[in-house]
Amino acid sequence: MSQYRTFTAADAVEYAREFGGIADPQSLVSSQEIGDGNLNLVFKIFDRDDVSRIVVKQALPYVRCVGESWPLTLDRARIEAEVLQIHGQFCPAHTVKILHYDPALAVMVMEDLSSHAIWRGEQVKGIDYPQAAAQLGEYLAQTLFHTSDFYQHPYQKKADVIRFTNPELCDITEELFFNEPYEVHERNGYPRALESLVAQLRTDDELRQKVAGLKHRFLSNAEALLHGDVHSGSIFVAENSLKVIDAEFGFYGPMGFDVGSALGNLLINYCALPGLLAPREAADAREKRLDDVRTTWQSFAEGFLALAAEKTRDRALAYPGYAAEFLAKVWRDTLGYCGTELIRRTVGMSQVADIKTIQDEVMKAECVRQAITLGRTLILAADHVENIDALIARVRQNG
Amino acid sequence: MSQYRTFTAADAVEYAREFGGIADPQSLVSSQEIGDGNLNLVFKIFDRDDVSRIVVKQALPYVRCVGESWPLTLDRARIEAEVLQIHGQFCPAHTVKILHYDPALAVMVMEDLSSHAIWRGEQVKGIDYPQAAAQLGEYLAQTLFHTSDFYQHPYQKKADVIRFTNPELCDITEELFFNEPYEVHERNGYPRALESLVAQLRTDDELRQKVAGLKHRFLSNAEALLHGDVHSGSIFVAENSLKVIDAEFGFYGPMGFDVGSALGNLLINYCALPGLLAPREAADAREKRLDDVRTTWQSFAEGFLALAAEKTRDRALAYPGYAAEFLAKVWRDTLGYCGTELIRRTVGMSQVADIKTIQDEVMKAECVRQAITLGRTLILAADHVENIDALIARVRQNG
Repeated sequence: MSQYRTFTAADAVEYAREFGGIADPQSLVSSQEIGDGNLNLVFKIFDRDDVSRIVVKQALPYVRCVGESWPLTLDRARIEAEVLQIHGQFCPAHTVKILHYDPALAVMVMEDLSSHAIWRGEQVKGIDYPQAAAQLGEYLAQTLFHTSDFYQHPYQKKADVIRFTNPELCDITEELFFNEPYEVHERNGYPRALESLVAQLRTDDELRQKVAGLKHRFLSNAEALLHGDVHSGSIFVAENSLKVIDAEFGFYGPMGFDVGSALGNLLINYCALPGLLAPREAADAREKRLDDVRTTWQSFAEGFLALAAEKTRDRALAYPGYAAEFLAKVWRDTLGYCGTELIRRTVGMSQVADIKTIQDEVMKAECVRQAITLGRTLILAADHVENIDALIARVRQNG
Repeated sequence: MSQYRTFTAADAVEYAREFGGIADPQSLVSSQEIGDGNLNLVFKIFDRDDVSRIVVKQALPYVRCVGESWPLTLDRARIEAEVLQIHGQFCPAHTVKILHYDPALAVMVMEDLSSHAIWRGEQVKGIDYPQAAAQLGEYLAQTLFHTSDFYQHPYQKKADVIRFTNPELCDITEELFFNEPYEVHERNGYPRALESLVAQLRTDDELRQKVAGLKHRFLSNAEALLHGDVHSGSIFVAENSLKVIDAEFGFYGPMGFDVGSALGNLLINYCALPGLLAPREAADAREKRLDDVRTTWQSFAEGFLALAAEKTRDRALAYPGYAAEFLAKVWRDTLGYCGTELIRRTVGMSQVADIKTIQDEVMKAECVRQAITLGRTLILAADHVENIDALIARVRQNG
């Protein structure tokens, strides 16, 4: 049994040689730490031709941005690796491949995705990947259906709920998504010019009650093994390819949380584009982003219903028409969680490049204002926005 | 560590002497096995004056009614004892007191309730306990609130979801409640005269979809530590006293399941009374039973809201107005689960004394018909029956 130690660049190379499963391990000679997050070391491992061949990721026992003062369980590396293995079993095309992991070292070895780029960065630059949304919808349909009560035997599902109980990482979401943006909190990060708008969120009774319901369902609705943090920064894209990474927030939760997080990040980009690109390019990119929103939902919904019709194993849930009824619940949740994602990424601590890249402060505040008002609208109207067309119409109305 | 062996009457006496916590253990001299269920041995332990002083309950490793052919986990004794201990912590007045338990022997020692009678038996005889409904509502409010996300720290709640994962007993409910009554199944037990009515349940699309939703929420909504089988046969009553026993089906599930099971059994008695008592007495007893239904719900709902206002610890869920919004969800679930309880107790395997005691076969079939149609109505109308008055009106309309 290995004992935890923080990897050096040389450790990472040696580990990749041993566990990378490549034919010529001695060709691996150097590494570069590329982690931009706060929780992990991420090493790219290069061969003699300076080609990146493999990735070694190690969880740190603390949150890096605040030094060693915020300890965080290393068990999240196990959860991340095992979620990706299960998601990879059901959707190999769009899940990063895990080659090896060691729970004691909190380390995993995975396929190199240097041929891909992070989707968020591409969206910020206005670069379009026309197939990405359909592939993301496919990933969501395959992973959420196959880990749900529709498909899993109740014994297996109950065992997996235990296996993927993730208290510390869920606690981060519970705080950052559902509490802090609606409170006066030192970690919040919105532009000062929006103080009065943000203050209104705190005292909006109907909004706060809806957010309470979304948090309660996050805490109690164990519908499927979620990725738990499907945003544009956890998604690699290339021409005709999409790969989801970074599943350390995985746990059994409400399906609409994953779908809503995905749509919410597309809509944040939509709100940010006027601050990122010249007017005509921004307008074009916004239309593409709305297409992405529509396609992601449609691909998920159609994929889910097709899987439910073909592969549901629970006798009661297999009754014709039930999957569609349940999908309507997922849609309402999706709208709500999409709204909370828009707000937590703008009001809260976890700011995103789409907004941070905007240079002009006045423009930035205007984009953030739009994201917040859209988020608020979606949370409040979640039970009344009938379908994806009605959602797109609401987004356009918002400005 | 003790090893499992099935207790004899003498074993039970010896065990009660050792673990009953009474001042004069040697006064315990005899025992009587009184288990009427199929899963357990239940011994009353008597002293020299032939007074019952203590109860020893042991789980059997199989279902007794089918010999040793249906094995069943002994872990249910641990779950039963620990659910009752937690419920007893929050509602000591109405939870049977557990004095000792041993997980390896699957045995528990508990207070003697010989001064009480099983509520179902009393209802069958038309004996009224005017305080019981309010006390049952109080039990439901205290146990469900204090084990929910309103009150429990998320870490504690997640740990308790694991601790009370109960796959084998939940499997019984999943089959008997939500599958078999809606299928042609050898275990079903309805009167032959009702074949066409029962056949209609199997092909009623809307009903089957609603039942699928209720099963899905039973499988996935971990709202509170349920008793899991709160029916009139799991409740002891005496003048001004009510004690809940038999929590081996306990797990984290939707609150409406416990509340609906409780109301459903009161309503089965309502449906059965014309077959049990003379017409005038039956009419009086029916009014009392409707009062019990009303009082149980009101006592639960008022108790839950009062606790939520005073003691909610989750910052988001504490927002004023949310508890009432959530209670509306519990009400809808309650109506649905009440409906499935009415149907599974009449169409399905788990028949009850209220019905079985009826001598006249024609009358029995008529009472069962009424219970089935009421169950169907409640499942279908769960989203439209606004409050307890509307429920009572629906019951009266049903006949």
